[in-house]
Amino acid sequence: MSGSAYDQDNVFAKILRGELPAQKLYEDDKTLAFMDIMPRGDGHCLAIPKQPARNLLDADTDSLAALMATVQKVGRAAMTALEADGLTIQQFNEEAGGQIVFHLHVHIIPRFTGVALRPHSGEMADQDKLAEQAAKIKAALATSDA
Amino acid sequence: MSGSAYDQDNVFAKILRGELPAQKLYEDDKTLAFMDIMPRGDGHCLAIPKQPARNLLDADTDSLAALMATVQKVGRAAMTALEADGLTIQQFNEEAGGQIVFHLHVHIIPRFTGVALRPHSGEMADQDKLAEQAAKIKAALATSDA
Repeated sequence: MSGSAYDQDNVFAKILRGELPAQKLYEDDKTLAFMDIMPRGDGHCLAIPKQPARNLLDADTDSLAALMATVQKVGRAAMTALEADGLTIQQFNEEAGGQIVFHLHVHIIPRFTGVALRPHSGEMADQDKLAEQAAKIKAALATSDA
Repeated sequence: MSGSAYDQDNVFAKILRGELPAQKLYEDDKTLAFMDIMPRGDGHCLAIPKQPARNLLDADTDSLAALMATVQKVGRAAMTALEADGLTIQQFNEEAGGQIVFHLHVHIIPRFTGVALRPHSGEMADQDKLAEQAAKIKAALATSDA
């Protein structure tokens, strides 16, 4: 039920190999977090494991645990940095489940009272705006205890 | 930013204490999974940690790791049991983030090609239908390696 095998040429694999750029927020030996370039809200970021996994269905348990620790850390920092009121976490598996890039990833979306998620437009965000948000989130990560 | 303190009287705390019923799917020392009574799709289930946590923001890292291992296990079983094509995972934090019950929980929603998520109607599902789905998922859990 877990679909096809892992594709080494998906865009997140390329980001991990440094073949594509990303506005990186946090990195440790098992995970990487960076800004989503098609954000559904201000401060929308993504966390991925470094270990190849197509999605949640084939992920290694340790890798998944490390991923969620990063989701928590970056999520807290993003809320602080953007003075958000809440946080929506989404994770999509297989096309029917909403997955577009086939490397396991978790969406971390700061939420603001009264502001709905933007629809998936397929449009790239302004890179300067993303860089500004990334700088704030990195500053919050640097000063957090977590 | 993590909102108010943990409320011991939220409905999931009551389910954990056996004060409210639930269609249980899986239980271990750290986690519990059961059917969502207001499902957004067939086989919609929830996983929660036993340790009190308001949401992702205040959760203990070990508890979170155990929770995600259960999400993976139950998600795989639900897909198999219902012959689903995908899986959507959602986790809401604070009201602005979509949270309604203030005990950390993860939504595990089997997805079927061409079938959209049902809106939050606030209506209870038919208990017999939930029981039938629960029986299938438990059977899949019993025969899985995970």
